Amino acid sequence: MIQGSSKNELEEVLIPQLQFSKRGGLLPVIVQEFDSGQVLMLGYANEEAFQKTLKVRKATFWSTSRKKLWTKGETSGNYLLIKNIMVDCDQDAIIYQVELMGDGVCHTFNQKGKNRKACFYRNYTIEKNELEFIEGME
Amino acid sequence: MIQGSSKNELEEVLIPQLQFSKRGGLLPVIVQEFDSGQVLMLGYANEEAFQKTLKVRKATFWSTSRKKLWTKGETSGNYLLIKNIMVDCDQDAIIYQVELMGDGVCHTFNQKGKNRKACFYRNYTIEKNELEFIEGME
Repeated sequence: MIQGSSKNELEEVLIPQLQFSKRGGLLPVIVQEFDSGQVLMLGYANEEAFQKTLKVRKATFWSTSRKKLWTKGETSGNYLLIKNIMVDCDQDAIIYQVELMGDGVCHTFNQKGKNRKACFYRNYTIEKNELEFIEGME
Repeated sequence: MIQGSSKNELEEVLIPQLQFSKRGGLLPVIVQEFDSGQVLMLGYANEEAFQKTLKVRKATFWSTSRKKLWTKGETSGNYLLIKNIMVDCDQDAIIYQVELMGDGVCHTFNQKGKNRKACFYRNYTIEKNELEFIEGME
């Protein structure tokens, strides 16, 4: 993918020119449930992770904690099947719209002992300056 | 905000400990329309931008291109009013759920000459390895 293009060449074109280098090799990836629109998690992809996602049609990331390529679900079988991919105006942010296999994407567990559906399970309350669990995601 | 806490202290607590330092001072912010669930854009917030968002209840970012604090709409009047804020398990990603003033959040224009509603106006087609405009957002 060509990098270092001018703004308009990124915004109105149909040729992908994802700007990995602009963000130090990693672009943020919003993972959204295709059917509901719920935002499930935010991950990061380098070019290898993105290309693997295209190839296997399962959400693949660069794990910034484990520093390795990571196809979500590769150990559990709970893959995130790619239904659609979107890129933003300046091609430095990505959305994976997915169908969720298994209980949830989050490594944390709810009170029933199941993986939480989404990593975004708490609201930030402005009034109290506190977090609060979203109902049903405790 | 305290930083450098252990994992479980971040995941199950109600005390905000946003991990700005973990990500070089900037956390990714997913901007989602509150009513529809549509993802409008991805921005970044440093602690100052986040605190200003809490104070003025309008989505505020650190502009990585202009390198300044940026309350979206401060010149156009087309603010993003904060309806809800969410944080993820390890407190290093944020969602601003907003009500959109004006036509759209994107600096690019559609064929009617109006700001596009969302920065995510193109799909990445796996089959063709091309971008395509989403219907109605050309």
